[in-house]
Formats: sequence, C-alpha cells, structure tokens
Amino acid sequence: MTTTATTATTAPPASTDLLVRAQHFYAHQMQHLDAGRFEEYAATFTEDGEFQHSPGVDPARTRPGIVRELVDFHRRFDGDPVQRRHWFNHMALEHQEDGTVRSTVYALVVTVRPGGKPDVAPSCLVHDTLVDGPEGIRLKSRRITHDQQF
Amino acid sequence: MTTTATTATTAPPASTDLLVRAQHFYAHQMQHLDAGRFEEYAATFTEDGEFQHSPGVDPARTRPGIVRELVDFHRRFDGDPVQRRHWFNHMALEHQEDGTVRSTVYALVVTVRPGGKPDVAPSCLVHDTLVDGPEGIRLKSRRITHDQQF
Amino acid sequence: MTTTATTATTAPPASTDLLVRAQHFYAHQMQHLDAGRFEEYAATFTEDGEFQHSPGVDPARTRPGIVRELVDFHRRFDGDPVQRRHWFNHMALEHQEDGTVRSTVYALVVTVRPGGKPDVAPSCLVHDTLVDGPEGIRLKSRRITHDQQF
Repeated sequence: MTTTATTATTAPPASTDLLVRAQHFYAHQMQHLDAGRFEEYAATFTEDGEFQHSPGVDPARTRPGIVRELVDFHRRFDGDPVQRRHWFNHMALEHQEDGTVRSTVYALVVTVRPGGKPDVAPSCLVHDTLVDGPEGIRLKSRRITHDQQF
Repeated sequence: MTTTATTATTAPPASTDLLVRAQHFYAHQMQHLDAGRFEEYAATFTEDGEFQHSPGVDPARTRPGIVRELVDFHRRFDGDPVQRRHWFNHMALEHQEDGTVRSTVYALVVTVRPGGKPDVAPSCLVHDTLVDGPEGIRLKSRRITHDQQF
Repeated sequence: MTTTATTATTAPPASTDLLVRAQHFYAHQMQHLDAGRFEEYAATFTEDGEFQHSPGVDPARTRPGIVRELVDFHRRFDGDPVQRRHWFNHMALEHQEDGTVRSTVYALVVTVRPGGKPDVAPSCLVHDTLVDGPEGIRLKSRRITHDQQF
C-alpha cells in the first residue's frame, strides 16, 4: 500500500507552469489542424519532428513532410463538406531522463456535416514527446493509437 | 518555415494565471447554466454584456436581458424532463489591443432524458470576449457558431 | 444585481496552483482506472477514503476495499474486450470550512469495443472531496450521480 501510494505521488512531477502552457499549446495546435492551417500545425513540431497519425503507417518527418502528409490525408474529404474537431482530455505529463516530456492524452474525433449530427469516433490515445525550449513547447514526436484496435 | 514558427510562438501570450482562472471561470459559469441558475450565469457577463446563443438571432444585452432570453429559450423544455451539459474543450486565448482577451473554445451540448442515452449535439464554436478586472473575469460578449451550418 | 455579481466573484477562491494540480491529479487517476491499474487508482484516495460509483449502492471504504469493489465491478467485462475512457470536464473547486476542497466535475463514459464505434454513455456528475496534504492531493470521498436518473 505504501509503495503504491509513493508511486502515485512521484508520478506527476511536471510544474504547474508547464502543465498550463502544454494545455494551451494543444488548444492552439488542434484549432490550427481543424481549421486546415497545416503550416501552423506543422510549426508546432520541432524541425525534425515525427508525426504518425495512424498505427501501421510510416510517420511523416520534418515540418514540410508533415504538411505533405496532411494535404494527402485530407484529399479524402475533397468535395465532402466536413468540419472535424479533435477533442482532448486528461493530459498527463511525465518528465523523461533525456529532458523531454512524455504526454499521454485522450482524444475523440468529432465529425460534422451540414445539417447532420456530430459523429463521435474514433476514440484514440495520443502519445507525444514534448520539448520545452527557448521558443516554447514543440512536439518532437506524436504517435496515435486507436481504441477500436486491440 | 521560420515565419510560420514565429507566428505559432507569438500567438499565445496569455499568462498561465489568466489561463487557469479563465478555465475555472468557464467551469462555474457553465455549471450555473446547466443547473438553471440563470441569474448566476448572467452575472458572469459585464453589466453591458452581449450574448448571442444562435446565429441569426439578435444578441441579448445586459444581465437582465440575458436572464430574460434564457427563461424564454428554456420554455421549450417545459414539461420535458431534460438535463443538458455544455462541454468545453481547447480554450485558446489571445490578448487584443484594446485590453480585452479573445477566447475561442470548442463546445458540445450533451442532452440527457430519464432512462435515455446522452444525445451529443450540436457541435459549436464559442467566440468570447473577456475582460479581466478587479472583480475577476467577466464576459463582454459571447457569440456561438454552429458546425452544422457551413 | 450587485449581490449576484458578488456571489459569482466569491464562489471560486481556489488558487491557480491547486486548480492545475487537481486537474493533473484527475488525468493520472482516470488513466490509471481506464488501464485497469486499480491499486494505483485506490492509492489516489486517503487511507479511509470512500468511493460510491453508482447511486443506491453502499460506498467502498479504504484502499483495499476500493480495489475489491473495482475487481468485482469489472467481472461483468470478463471475456468482453472493452476499452472504457472516463472523460472529465468543467472541474469546479470550492474550499470548505473544514479545510477540504469540494470538486464538482462533469463526466462522460466512452466505451469502445474492437471494430466498433465509441458508445458515449452515461453522463454523470462527480462529487469529490479532496484533501491537499504533504503527499499531494488525495480523494477523501467520491460520489457519482447519473444524469439519466432524475
């Protein structure tokens, strides 16, 4: 019991300042993505950042590579008027020994079409590695796993 | 690339203190609304606050005006036992040159009836203008857009 | 009008530090629960903590009692591959005269099965009593009410 309690106590060592900035970083980042501002989304990654949005596909690398991947991915919505909203919840941060921060976040994709009702799917887990440098928080890598696949 | 990165860096200048207080402000405000405490909800606006809950309708103005609008709007639920919950996500703040703070927030309305399942609709965008004065945060204006209309 | 405004102002006196730590506490706590780490979940309660997850059932008491309750409850999912995600929103804190902190939070349970779509139900209200001691935040009691029952 003591051991378990200690684990729970030592697990979340992130400063409140980092926690709040990370949350706000995500708010702007995902509003960029859902508004189709792919350059701005890619700019939230480090220069050599990696982004794997689906299991089993190769991650996109570097900011130009991430923009290309997003443009390619969104071709499926050409001529399909759709508004997607990526919701996040329960952001949990953990400092890593190499100075990066691991961030694990719940995600739900909400998809809306004109006159329709929101489609709430899929449910995902976001596995991020953050770096907090002089220019603020940046994503070193993002990997998404899907709750429907297990 | 440098330009884009700079944009991303300079966009979110809000202090962590304001971010946390704004989030908590919303928590209390929306719990007031969903509990039918319309006076308390209206009191989160400035004296001359404006509230437009649906596109195309005139905004309600002043606290008494907002209370009247909410009472009117909720008449549609007379005799209909319903619990609504307004969920918020990805609050993004931006300081404006006039000293106010623009807040853009995702919203989903969750509607529940006895024995039923939650109905998750509509998906909205909340466009708020906040002022942070001696009595704390107040809403100068709120305008809601609906993702289903585009 | 003045009275109402004052009420709204004095209601949320929690420090930004406590607000951020409470939010992060919930993130880790619920990720523990949804991953089936019941010992870690129970360790987020005080030694004499109480947990009532459904109205009308007796609350589980003490950490070992909470673990037993969770193991019992999850037997219903034996042989049923299911991933549940408890989403939280609008955490509102209020200091109590006895030094504890009352926390009222919206919750939605998202249930996913392989190849299926997320089931978003039920909608709940979480009524927590937090204590903030030398080892950090702990739950003195948690009581869940269901929006479908009213």
